[in-house]
Amino acid sequence: MADTNRGVVYMGPGTVEVQETPYPTFELRDGPGVHPDSVGRECHHGVILKIVSTNICGSDQHMVRGRTTAPRGLILGHEITGEVIEVGRDVEYIRRGDLVSTPFNIACGRCRNCKERKTGICLNTNPARPGAAYGYVDMGGWPGGQARYVMVPYADFNLLKFRDKEQAMAKILDLTMLSDIFPTGYHGAVTAGTTTGSTVYVAGAGPVGLAAAHAAQLLGASVVIVGDLIPERLAQARSFGCETIDVSRGDPGDQIAEILGTPEVDCGVDAVGFEAHGHGKDAGEEAPATVLNSLMTITRAGGALGIPGLYVTGDPGAKDDAAKEGSLSIRIGLGWAKSHVFTTGQCPVMKYNRELMEAILQDRCQIARAVNATVITLDDAPQGYRDFDRGAARKYVIDPHGLVGAAA
Amino acid sequence: MADTNRGVVYMGPGTVEVQETPYPTFELRDGPGVHPDSVGRECHHGVILKIVSTNICGSDQHMVRGRTTAPRGLILGHEITGEVIEVGRDVEYIRRGDLVSTPFNIACGRCRNCKERKTGICLNTNPARPGAAYGYVDMGGWPGGQARYVMVPYADFNLLKFRDKEQAMAKILDLTMLSDIFPTGYHGAVTAGTTTGSTVYVAGAGPVGLAAAHAAQLLGASVVIVGDLIPERLAQARSFGCETIDVSRGDPGDQIAEILGTPEVDCGVDAVGFEAHGHGKDAGEEAPATVLNSLMTITRAGGALGIPGLYVTGDPGAKDDAAKEGSLSIRIGLGWAKSHVFTTGQCPVMKYNRELMEAILQDRCQIARAVNATVITLDDAPQGYRDFDRGAARKYVIDPHGLVGAAA
Amino acid sequence: MADTNRGVVYMGPGTVEVQETPYPTFELRDGPGVHPDSVGRECHHGVILKIVSTNICGSDQHMVRGRTTAPRGLILGHEITGEVIEVGRDVEYIRRGDLVSTPFNIACGRCRNCKERKTGICLNTNPARPGAAYGYVDMGGWPGGQARYVMVPYADFNLLKFRDKEQAMAKILDLTMLSDIFPTGYHGAVTAGTTTGSTVYVAGAGPVGLAAAHAAQLLGASVVIVGDLIPERLAQARSFGCETIDVSRGDPGDQIAEILGTPEVDCGVDAVGFEAHGHGKDAGEEAPATVLNSLMTITRAGGALGIPGLYVTGDPGAKDDAAKEGSLSIRIGLGWAKSHVFTTGQCPVMKYNRELMEAILQDRCQIARAVNATVITLDDAPQGYRDFDRGAARKYVIDPHGLVGAAA
Amino acid sequence: MADTNRGVVYMGPGTVEVQETPYPTFELRDGPGVHPDSVGRECHHGVILKIVSTNICGSDQHMVRGRTTAPRGLILGHEITGEVIEVGRDVEYIRRGDLVSTPFNIACGRCRNCKERKTGICLNTNPARPGAAYGYVDMGGWPGGQARYVMVPYADFNLLKFRDKEQAMAKILDLTMLSDIFPTGYHGAVTAGTTTGSTVYVAGAGPVGLAAAHAAQLLGASVVIVGDLIPERLAQARSFGCETIDVSRGDPGDQIAEILGTPEVDCGVDAVGFEAHGHGKDAGEEAPATVLNSLMTITRAGGALGIPGLYVTGDPGAKDDAAKEGSLSIRIGLGWAKSHVFTTGQCPVMKYNRELMEAILQDRCQIARAVNATVITLDDAPQGYRDFDRGAARKYVIDPHGLVGAAA
Repeated sequence: MADTNRGVVYMGPGTVEVQETPYPTFELRDGPGVHPDSVGRECHHGVILKIVSTNICGSDQHMVRGRTTAPRGLILGHEITGEVIEVGRDVEYIRRGDLVSTPFNIACGRCRNCKERKTGICLNTNPARPGAAYGYVDMGGWPGGQARYVMVPYADFNLLKFRDKEQAMAKILDLTMLSDIFPTGYHGAVTAGTTTGSTVYVAGAGPVGLAAAHAAQLLGASVVIVGDLIPERLAQARSFGCETIDVSRGDPGDQIAEILGTPEVDCGVDAVGFEAHGHGKDAGEEAPATVLNSLMTITRAGGALGIPGLYVTGDPGAKDDAAKEGSLSIRIGLGWAKSHVFTTGQCPVMKYNRELMEAILQDRCQIARAVNATVITLDDAPQGYRDFDRGAARKYVIDPHGLVGAAA
Repeated sequence: MADTNRGVVYMGPGTVEVQETPYPTFELRDGPGVHPDSVGRECHHGVILKIVSTNICGSDQHMVRGRTTAPRGLILGHEITGEVIEVGRDVEYIRRGDLVSTPFNIACGRCRNCKERKTGICLNTNPARPGAAYGYVDMGGWPGGQARYVMVPYADFNLLKFRDKEQAMAKILDLTMLSDIFPTGYHGAVTAGTTTGSTVYVAGAGPVGLAAAHAAQLLGASVVIVGDLIPERLAQARSFGCETIDVSRGDPGDQIAEILGTPEVDCGVDAVGFEAHGHGKDAGEEAPATVLNSLMTITRAGGALGIPGLYVTGDPGAKDDAAKEGSLSIRIGLGWAKSHVFTTGQCPVMKYNRELMEAILQDRCQIARAVNATVITLDDAPQGYRDFDRGAARKYVIDPHGLVGAAA
Repeated sequence: MADTNRGVVYMGPGTVEVQETPYPTFELRDGPGVHPDSVGRECHHGVILKIVSTNICGSDQHMVRGRTTAPRGLILGHEITGEVIEVGRDVEYIRRGDLVSTPFNIACGRCRNCKERKTGICLNTNPARPGAAYGYVDMGGWPGGQARYVMVPYADFNLLKFRDKEQAMAKILDLTMLSDIFPTGYHGAVTAGTTTGSTVYVAGAGPVGLAAAHAAQLLGASVVIVGDLIPERLAQARSFGCETIDVSRGDPGDQIAEILGTPEVDCGVDAVGFEAHGHGKDAGEEAPATVLNSLMTITRAGGALGIPGLYVTGDPGAKDDAAKEGSLSIRIGLGWAKSHVFTTGQCPVMKYNRELMEAILQDRCQIARAVNATVITLDDAPQGYRDFDRGAARKYVIDPHGLVGAAA
Repeated sequence: MADTNRGVVYMGPGTVEVQETPYPTFELRDGPGVHPDSVGRECHHGVILKIVSTNICGSDQHMVRGRTTAPRGLILGHEITGEVIEVGRDVEYIRRGDLVSTPFNIACGRCRNCKERKTGICLNTNPARPGAAYGYVDMGGWPGGQARYVMVPYADFNLLKFRDKEQAMAKILDLTMLSDIFPTGYHGAVTAGTTTGSTVYVAGAGPVGLAAAHAAQLLGASVVIVGDLIPERLAQARSFGCETIDVSRGDPGDQIAEILGTPEVDCGVDAVGFEAHGHGKDAGEEAPATVLNSLMTITRAGGALGIPGLYVTGDPGAKDDAAKEGSLSIRIGLGWAKSHVFTTGQCPVMKYNRELMEAILQDRCQIARAVNATVITLDDAPQGYRDFDRGAARKYVIDPHGLVGAAA
């Protein structure tokens, strides 16, 4: 008999609550954000997971701060690792008992984009626009996974299975980062052109920024520099070998020159997105194009910008009308003069998660340590949201069944 | 004994004149736009060309319209094809008598960027910033080639030699496009992701837009759609098999849907740049971000934008302060939601010109016909500038020695 | 009630017969070549096709000539286009009535290789080794499609749907080539490095060679040269603009020099495989490494070899023991000195078929004409095999229901 | 006044001697291996180096063992690091006093191949075939650098300058590996497809194999396995974290399965070449195709083979006639069935050396330790050759002026 479910629910700007939520079935039922065309969608290709770990993401914060059009009542959470406890009729390769990582993108594995490895913009899982995710605004209304149980559709395609459960549980705090931020940071570093010997600047020392920085190390970067306003986060970046820049002290170029002997880097990563603040004396003010414009200044001619940081099509909390619809004042002439290439969009997690899993399992990287993974209970999630919003240099990992704690 | 030289000189906003100009030597002498550090720079690696053909470029128009910081007295012209009549001391592989195409980018062939094939941002040929060109603002002050003679530095590296002069003269109106617009259009199409079967939208039916459209055909595109405001240019695009859209009738999406059955294309090319005008009812007004924002709307999720159209770091003629320094209001949130990739910057001509030459010589493409190459004398160049500025659907090819006419 | 089925059956070296065959169901039943582990495999993800067209392939000839370990009783045929008449329980996006092209590779869409677009070596559809196909030796024992009906597993993933049935039927002789030889030839041309302006040599003027040659044209090659021993096939190559070489006259290098002025090409394609014959005076003798060694001679340093021609792991008909297990005497030192790159293996059709479909539908290529598509009835298939084996310059398209004839 | 020169001279099979050699000038003078067309070739683009370090390479051994057509009297040595002491007339960016690494490929920087980054097959520096090197058979007759002084042509293009001489001298044993084996090993790993999380098998634990193994680690490989016959070399591989396989114990597949749980790896690197020996009970016998055939067996379907190990076009010491002209019995049918890609040829060092230099300078890798760099005097070079030939697990670095020793 099925257990009852509980999850983290968005109650409106500034508030999340842990509530009883429906126990998942192989159907997308009506709910906040579910497109009418999706109501009742059958998912015999799905599995039900008992969630082992599920992380709070910086992009959840955008919703909770009221900076998106997220509907009240949405069950949050798109960073999901779990054990398969029930298997849909059409599932062939995933078995009950498998321990799996779930990419945050929900992808069908059958459309043109999925076939081209662009699982972040699947054409079949969200009637409103390309791309779907669990518990996220504009992403199809699929129930989120900051909960005890969740349904994962197209399980054969989406899930990454860990070969050895015991080995995996011993590294669960690292492996839990495969559902989103490690691939996302890696995607940022890769699309910024990071390779052996590169110098890399990562704007933002939140978890995605730290993941991008650690990914850049894994990709062979010679120097990785991380910029932020929050001293605690910069200290975290230094703890695993990054150089750091306090952008409240002014534009990053001068500080980069102190480190590298030149004010430019090979590769720029935007791990901040649209809720950016100004640099130097404008550090207190929101200035949404600051990071992009700064990256064009400090990235060398011929370099590239990886932009995993979120830019939205609608921002009800923006200061001006242009920003409310996602238009920002970008110094494109500067980037053009330097022949920059800009790669935007959500990371197609499946393109990277298997490779990163192998690197984790063989101790080639320590992503949990880099992002300062911190385990909390499901009931503590609201406090986690608050602490994270205040700039804690931590990545909160919710442990809804106490399994992570037990493994440690 | 050396002939005297004459060239097209920028006299200030709205005016060019054909004047006597210095006969070239193997030295970069002081002149408009020459950086103090470059004065007297020796170029024993250079050759002197008797210019066979030299084209007027849309980017020359930006200068002549006063929309850049170009200095008065600059000899214009960066699209140069010619015969080698004098060879510098250090030249080893180019010989007197060779007929050659000159990439508009001046590149040293020795710096990191040149070694990485990024000849558009050479680090050694312009002390002010990466990237140099003949007769162009901010590009090092090298004398231009809308003239009878010009000096080409680093000749062994820069020049593309035609194997058979007679064969080449028979196709000179096509081959003259190798110095800039054919590679530039091709770069736009390539960086937009054009491949077999792609649907492509090219914004702008000036010569670069037409070249991008023809390049897209050569790359195997299934449908190429060109948008512009000027009926004559749209007719020119239709003449070689493109579909067309009159953007004065409104946003391109609806018209694309009429052609393709869907309002989106796979690939978007911006062949307009910062002097864009509005669409639909705003067609008369300058609206510098219109093309970029429109391309994000009509390019499918997962698609790419190639941006050969010029965006500047300084525009004294812009309507507002942000645009004066090259900042435009870009709907980046939309591009981000669609995972777009944006490639900017000047085309590294050398990456493509040999391949395109082979395609021309074997009649695989008809670029002269596509852009409506029109031969004029050097003395007619000012009239050519005026006609081009009025929107003539022509690519003006200056024939300073009457050699093109003689070959026809 | 289901119609009865008939198909082309391999009866042993030299013989095929058209026989009654089982009507397909959503299950892989026991039969020639079916691995014990696969017997009874359920395929609710499959559909049943009424076959509209199904082509005879050169690789079928390898089996029929007794040069493989193909089991007697195998229903042949892996080039399948058809109409969906029955849909398995788990199929979601393909509908009854859809007209579809079937890639010859059978792929699950869920394994690591499929996710990496390597559908030619799917890990789940053949227990014996990576890679499966319809009606082919060592490829999993799936019943072939030179028949009236066939079952296609993993239909949502595998099938390419034509948007407009009427439009598609009007071009069905072109579209039928999407199941194998057009993508296969294109893969050969792409992996040989063909791009704008390339010079390309294609060894072999059978249908795959002609498809590779036409694909090279579509990719922008400046000159495409095809070599073979059979005058009729060379004439066919010339009919669509290729240059040709009669390899019975000697090594291709000299003849290439007559065409190009240099004995080397940029790109080499092996469309012959292991049943190659000698060149020049050895033209009558089988010499399995001839094509590879010749391609290393005539491909320029820095060039690449695309090898769609089949090389087998076991050849019972080979002349020596080494060749019997697929070992050939290859002049690898020559390729090494020229830094060649060699790409082998079956074409992952899904990587290319959508793009090629778009090119066909917009008249960007005429593949049916290039390979001389020739429609025959199912009952005439044995005669088609014989004519093809004698070197007819034709691609035989079986029309089991008379639908192709009706559309013409 | 010029110092006198001394260098390591090939005296015939089995013998090298240190002799007085000509002091270099800016001219390629007649000598062993110099093509008649090259005699007297002027090199005003060259510089003269006082050699700081110059390494003995495994490919030198092929010559000294008499397995090539190397002419007697050839001055050996192509791994050169030095200080510029004289600058040719045409050199512009390299200055007297610069400390530089010299890629072993001699490249003009002006031909098609150099422009395409294929500096290993430059078209202008060797009249006999594409590709040139210092002190190497068939590579143009350029005097080698196992000497006190050497001339480097096209210095602006070829040389990699170290920014800070003092910093560089402190890491000179690492930086000396940039002239050949570190890039060569890296090229092998890259072309084998190594990336984050890959499992990699490197055949051969000589210096190139060890460099490939360390490069694979730098590229993020999860497990690197090295195979060889010599226990000392395997111990060296283990010293920096590789797994090892003793191929005298049998085919590597079983041993790989013990390590990985599967008998296949993602990526295969051939760091042995044509002088391979058999595996298992055939370990004592030369068997030139053993490594290639073994790699096809143990590399997974869809994997790639990087082949930096040398295969020659002529081997006077081979056991059979086919091998004497570089033809080997290769099981190509197996590779084809697995869709393998094979990349051959000499490493284009310039594609990688800057990036690897940055990685060395920032302590991201320890290549000197990985290959067990061992400093010897110029006079000890013949003993170094003998020890290396006996299988010493060392990379010998000749220190002709005592500068390396002084820096240590």
